[in-house]
Amino acid sequence: MQPKGQQLIGLDAFFAAGAPIHAVNPASGEQLEPAYASGGFAEVNRACELAESASVAFRTSSLQQRATFLETIADQIEAIGDELIQRGMLESGLPRARLEGERGRTCGQLRLFASVVRAGEWLDVRIDPALPERQPLPRVDLRQQHIALGPVVVFGASNFPLAFSVAGGDTASALAAGCPVIVKAHSAHPGTSELVGRAVQAAIKECQMPEGVFSLLFGSGFEVGQALVSDPRVKAVGFTGSRSGGMALMATAQTRLQPIPVYAEMSSINPVFLLPEALQSRTQALAEGFIGSLSMGAGQFCTSPGLVIAIRSSALDTFVAATSKVISGIATQTMLTPGIHSAYEQGVKALSDNVGVRSLGNGDASDAPNQCQATLFTTSAEVFLNDDRLQDEVFGACSLLIECDDMAQVKSVAEKLEGQLTATIQMEEGDIEQAKLLLPALEERAGRVLVNGWPTGVEVCHAMVHGGPFPATSDSRTTSVGSAAIYRFLRPVCYQNMPQALLPEVLRDGNPLKVSQLMDGKRVV
Amino acid sequence: MQPKGQQLIGLDAFFAAGAPIHAVNPASGEQLEPAYASGGFAEVNRACELAESASVAFRTSSLQQRATFLETIADQIEAIGDELIQRGMLESGLPRARLEGERGRTCGQLRLFASVVRAGEWLDVRIDPALPERQPLPRVDLRQQHIALGPVVVFGASNFPLAFSVAGGDTASALAAGCPVIVKAHSAHPGTSELVGRAVQAAIKECQMPEGVFSLLFGSGFEVGQALVSDPRVKAVGFTGSRSGGMALMATAQTRLQPIPVYAEMSSINPVFLLPEALQSRTQALAEGFIGSLSMGAGQFCTSPGLVIAIRSSALDTFVAATSKVISGIATQTMLTPGIHSAYEQGVKALSDNVGVRSLGNGDASDAPNQCQATLFTTSAEVFLNDDRLQDEVFGACSLLIECDDMAQVKSVAEKLEGQLTATIQMEEGDIEQAKLLLPALEERAGRVLVNGWPTGVEVCHAMVHGGPFPATSDSRTTSVGSAAIYRFLRPVCYQNMPQALLPEVLRDGNPLKVSQLMDGKRVV
Repeated sequence: MQPKGQQLIGLDAFFAAGAPIHAVNPASGEQLEPAYASGGFAEVNRACELAESASVAFRTSSLQQRATFLETIADQIEAIGDELIQRGMLESGLPRARLEGERGRTCGQLRLFASVVRAGEWLDVRIDPALPERQPLPRVDLRQQHIALGPVVVFGASNFPLAFSVAGGDTASALAAGCPVIVKAHSAHPGTSELVGRAVQAAIKECQMPEGVFSLLFGSGFEVGQALVSDPRVKAVGFTGSRSGGMALMATAQTRLQPIPVYAEMSSINPVFLLPEALQSRTQALAEGFIGSLSMGAGQFCTSPGLVIAIRSSALDTFVAATSKVISGIATQTMLTPGIHSAYEQGVKALSDNVGVRSLGNGDASDAPNQCQATLFTTSAEVFLNDDRLQDEVFGACSLLIECDDMAQVKSVAEKLEGQLTATIQMEEGDIEQAKLLLPALEERAGRVLVNGWPTGVEVCHAMVHGGPFPATSDSRTTSVGSAAIYRFLRPVCYQNMPQALLPEVLRDGNPLKVSQLMDGKRVV
Repeated sequence: MQPKGQQLIGLDAFFAAGAPIHAVNPASGEQLEPAYASGGFAEVNRACELAESASVAFRTSSLQQRATFLETIADQIEAIGDELIQRGMLESGLPRARLEGERGRTCGQLRLFASVVRAGEWLDVRIDPALPERQPLPRVDLRQQHIALGPVVVFGASNFPLAFSVAGGDTASALAAGCPVIVKAHSAHPGTSELVGRAVQAAIKECQMPEGVFSLLFGSGFEVGQALVSDPRVKAVGFTGSRSGGMALMATAQTRLQPIPVYAEMSSINPVFLLPEALQSRTQALAEGFIGSLSMGAGQFCTSPGLVIAIRSSALDTFVAATSKVISGIATQTMLTPGIHSAYEQGVKALSDNVGVRSLGNGDASDAPNQCQATLFTTSAEVFLNDDRLQDEVFGACSLLIECDDMAQVKSVAEKLEGQLTATIQMEEGDIEQAKLLLPALEERAGRVLVNGWPTGVEVCHAMVHGGPFPATSDSRTTSVGSAAIYRFLRPVCYQNMPQALLPEVLRDGNPLKVSQLMDGKRVV
């Protein structure tokens, strides 16, 4: 099946009437067909209307029904076959292996959420039975579960055309929670989006889910995106993208008559701390590992290591020489969009122009369109501590090495950092005291703290936190990857003295759904 | 011990230099001594500095230490003795029995949170062990816990001088989470606040907690309150009060360089639905129960039943006649402050002046200062559905009965409601279908749905939700009462491939703290 350029609203598919959007093949610069005529108010209104009308039926569907629906979406995505991969390569410039891996991750994620839905931990069932004899006052029967917030708007991200897009982590976790989803497709990969959207439509039909459970709109972020976030029927927003884009959505959500949560994953430079003994004993391996993590996927990851911190030493000199050598062998890679490429070039130029910063080397250059040339800079801790601009994310394969006088200065750098998705410590046994010194500052600033690894590569599992304090995300209490992502789309409801016949099934006597419960404050599995 | 009029910052107590604040005895209108000279920037700065400096030590204190600290606060509050009750009566106009009950609730709440801290459920421990043999890629060891957000600012509420004030639910849950707390005392009960604040100071000394764990500031909401919420060292805010006050804090928190969560519990009219068979079979009991709930504490509860909805019938006529009769016997009660009293009179006048609304009766009147005269109004569903002002909370013993033509209109009223703390259904077995029809709309609009009870009286337990969609609160995903209130002050952190010696104790192998865990997604108690 080839993409047609249609908006998908509920089970409908049709051409809108707004200005056309064309994807661009970033490797060649050529415009891709078909055009996507932008949606407008009518499409937003219709999608919200359908989502609202599906809301109660979907959130009260059985755990089994919802889990099967998620699995069916995964099956339908796989059923698209190689056309999905080919279209993704064309629109994103990403290589085949990466997109095949990403498809695996996307479908695995949907199936993980199916198992999460079935297990029912997310319902956070709490039962405090009546205590009619209690003095001075009896206690009435009180039971709690979590319910879905209602329709959720998801913005597809540019850098993961499958895993953070139409049926990516935000959509999977929102559907798992029981929220209808309206996706605003990213204009960089509309064809990929449409193909996945049609797979979701097929799953809705196959599972006989209410039609309004899913819509996919194409249009400008400003018009369609802001209209969606402003709509009173929308109850939460998931977004992965730029800091300015996320903050615009946060502002819109806060000025609504009824403010709603926005889960924006925005900007992170992912500091890596090279502690002395590790630097001494693994100099070459660290240089190779670092440049490998930095250049992977042209550095177009939220978790790309944009900052490396170490104490001046002869080992650091050797590390610097090694990284300069390794980076010089890195070939250019096609970036996702012309816009991302030009922002990267601007970010690199700002560092080049900064008198406090000097170059440590580059990868290959190329005259082909939208090529990312890997770049490494260095500066001193003094300069870094006095120049907030050096914390700005440069999205792509660019990193900055901070040279420190001593461990106290390393700690000052750590404490100066904004919120991050990740912070990494490279250490050996002899570095343990320094690591202990750093850990509190890193815990307070990052969603994930790693030892002896590289931040790129985010496992989709139960303990993952892909989040962190602002500006890494808009809400440090949450994760956008892993099973805990479902909690973003839920709220607790307490049922007091409710007859069994009226109680939601999961709260009835005898634990009919066999879900883990907090009974009078004690965990019962 | 008598209150002295001093600011309490860390373990210090001193007189500030700003404009004096005097409490007023609302029963007599007389000013009470001592004066509280307002704090200003210096006090805010000092309290934030101390709180930040205590932050790591406090959040990494052992579960046992923190639990004992909470219990010691309760002991120290009880040790104040009757002076606390007497001062509370003087400043609030509330009767002795109510304040004694509230003290019991406050201390019980602190002890509940001590048990919650020890049990460790709130840490949400998740462990995904390494899978070195996994194909195509191995999995690295990933572990998650929740950590404290950092310093929290709590605004004391006027209507619970103990249970929602200096050492009330917000403070107890924030301390339990491991967050230092800075309380901005409510100016209506500064003496009560100071006494409780000194009890907390005594507990800090006794338990050798870091000094900055607690401060208590007196001053204007605008100056001191906004300065606290703006301070970059503050990481979250707890507030119970008016809609305008809560929204001002939300706006301030959102415009900070680093936005922070504000948990504001604001406004709710707590609809009560009288279904036909219940109304028919329990007419007199419902009238008495309703007026009892409405007039309790002069209606000065967030959960006071400000709206009653029923279908026109002869049973409703009987109910109306009975409520008119019952309310006519209700004596006036002293309201908490002159400001609350005048806002109540204005709210009642707005309803009296509304041509679509008519009176159903009043309680006693009185010429004494700040007396609340209970008041009941009625209107039709048509009028209600077309006049949003009728959803404005009138804080005090005032309620509005909505007469509906049929069940469809009752449902329309339910679907028109803003977010609420509670929604109540009065029903008999024959009403079950109507209750099922209403439940989805009520779940979506209220934090707690009750059957055959009255919304006043909030149990402090594990299943309680004292929360709800905006404007009931600023964040429907949370509760401010009950053990789940602790989650407001936590965020998840993931530890990847971290050596045992560096891991937080609770995440180490062998579950040394015996805390419930999610191991590879499976619950292990």
